Amino acid sequence: MNILVLGGDGFLGSHLIDKIDLSEHRVTVFDRFKYDKSVNLEHVRDKIIFKAGEFANKPALSDALKDQDIVYHFISCTSPPISWNDPLIEIDQNLGSSIQLFDLSSNLGVKKIVFASSGGTVYGLQNKTTIDEATTPHPYVPYGITKLTIEYFLNYFHKKTGLSYDIFRIANPYGPRQPMNTPQGVIAIWMDSILKGKEIAVFGNSTSIRDYIYVEDVATLLTQSLNELETPNIYNVGSNEGISILELLEYFKKIIVTPFKYIIQEKREFDNLAIVLDSTKIYSKFPNFIPTNLETGLIKTWKFLNKISTI
Amino acid sequence: MNILVLGGDGFLGSHLIDKIDLSEHRVTVFDRFKYDKSVNLEHVRDKIIFKAGEFANKPALSDALKDQDIVYHFISCTSPPISWNDPLIEIDQNLGSSIQLFDLSSNLGVKKIVFASSGGTVYGLQNKTTIDEATTPHPYVPYGITKLTIEYFLNYFHKKTGLSYDIFRIANPYGPRQPMNTPQGVIAIWMDSILKGKEIAVFGNSTSIRDYIYVEDVATLLTQSLNELETPNIYNVGSNEGISILELLEYFKKIIVTPFKYIIQEKREFDNLAIVLDSTKIYSKFPNFIPTNLETGLIKTWKFLNKISTI
Repeated sequence: MNILVLGGDGFLGSHLIDKIDLSEHRVTVFDRFKYDKSVNLEHVRDKIIFKAGEFANKPALSDALKDQDIVYHFISCTSPPISWNDPLIEIDQNLGSSIQLFDLSSNLGVKKIVFASSGGTVYGLQNKTTIDEATTPHPYVPYGITKLTIEYFLNYFHKKTGLSYDIFRIANPYGPRQPMNTPQGVIAIWMDSILKGKEIAVFGNSTSIRDYIYVEDVATLLTQSLNELETPNIYNVGSNEGISILELLEYFKKIIVTPFKYIIQEKREFDNLAIVLDSTKIYSKFPNFIPTNLETGLIKTWKFLNKISTI
Repeated sequence: MNILVLGGDGFLGSHLIDKIDLSEHRVTVFDRFKYDKSVNLEHVRDKIIFKAGEFANKPALSDALKDQDIVYHFISCTSPPISWNDPLIEIDQNLGSSIQLFDLSSNLGVKKIVFASSGGTVYGLQNKTTIDEATTPHPYVPYGITKLTIEYFLNYFHKKTGLSYDIFRIANPYGPRQPMNTPQGVIAIWMDSILKGKEIAVFGNSTSIRDYIYVEDVATLLTQSLNELETPNIYNVGSNEGISILELLEYFKKIIVTPFKYIIQEKREFDNLAIVLDSTKIYSKFPNFIPTNLETGLIKTWKFLNKISTI
């Protein structure tokens, strides 16, 4: 099959590519490639096709979409803290370009779009902690509002043109290759601070529950879309387990032998309340799948970071 | 109280103003006033303030928003058939400007936004016919997707700045002053065709159920927002009764003595399936309210149109 991965050089995209059999499928990556070389895909340079371009660039995107069967859409130009203060950035940079992508894909014969949505911010305020896919979303952070709006537009294109889709509402992914220079991803941010000898900021308390999932597990689960191109589906992607921000801190103390400083602060306005996803629907597609436990995943991530920080 | 009505010269807005005690409240209307005079408000010209401007015009909107307590937002630059073919028009013309409105309102001390949302297109595809406000929305028409996204952004501004809101998900309003030159509002479109001696197009069959509500009833129910400025609310606004498109045709035959031609066609892609709103929540606020029955409302509308068409 011909597979296009938008944002494929990034955190989620590159791990997905590592789970795809590259002798069986033809994979094209569309990304910015800011420094004229790949950040995360040099180890498969000879096995995939690279196309550089901006998401909003219609001719570049059209060129990349030609002859593709399935398109994984991992591009997001924002994060919850950024768009909390500037909501129009979501409309300008994510929503309009995503609609353009779906329109071009419909016209160019793409069969399915796979969209990386957000588990926490799409569901938003809930009065229960375990959330399945049928739960009514109550987003209030612009990042999550826009993810949900893009989901609805996938529904529109499906009805109008037959373009199929899978939506993965991903919990809190973490692991090797997560960018450390963005305000998103608490585990990467904490590890980055520790490596730099800075104090880490812990926003929240024992009621600030998150659902952390190791990135390679996310990648495995997202390959489900390759098995079935017709019917649209929405899947939660989490670990099925909730961990408070203070429990996470305890794991850090256990794993990281170097002492580090931390300060516990109030949760911020854009931090969701407790949310754990019910991910049994996607797990049922992988009967032998066992999620990586948090301690193992944290050790792998810490080792990865120490290795690259000493290069 | 100081009340600003955006799109106040239009169908819903002008009826709302007719239900407000203008000796008690100071009402400002912000509208395009295309022909330098009001379309629907000449009868109250001396009792309200007129401000002309485009919705996207930030200085004009800011000027109108000064010292307002409550803002009714009735501006919509699109309709379901138009944005079905051009979804980006929703983003450009409705979504961005609405976000700008809420941002300006927050900064200028407005207490509450009242938003005219859509009962049919927001709920979208449902497998039940009677829909209360807690029903999970499944919009697939860009018009409805954008209405719902604007609702979510009201939630964001409420959390961020304390700006309150009421959302009215209005079913199928009809009655005097409904524009006949747009593709929205089947009753107005049919009556317009009959007056012009043209054949009317009936899209759908006995399973195409709609919830028609007389516009003066909508206006009455929307005055609820004046009673309570603090807590945000979402209300369905319908007649609590479903009528098929073929039953509506029978009413037309009964009321309109002149013979007219019609053709029954397949429902269109952007026509919703059967939806009747459960409007008991808003009705409970008006214990003496009895909705206008459809036959009475249709007769009033037909008489109004005959009167203006002979001027």
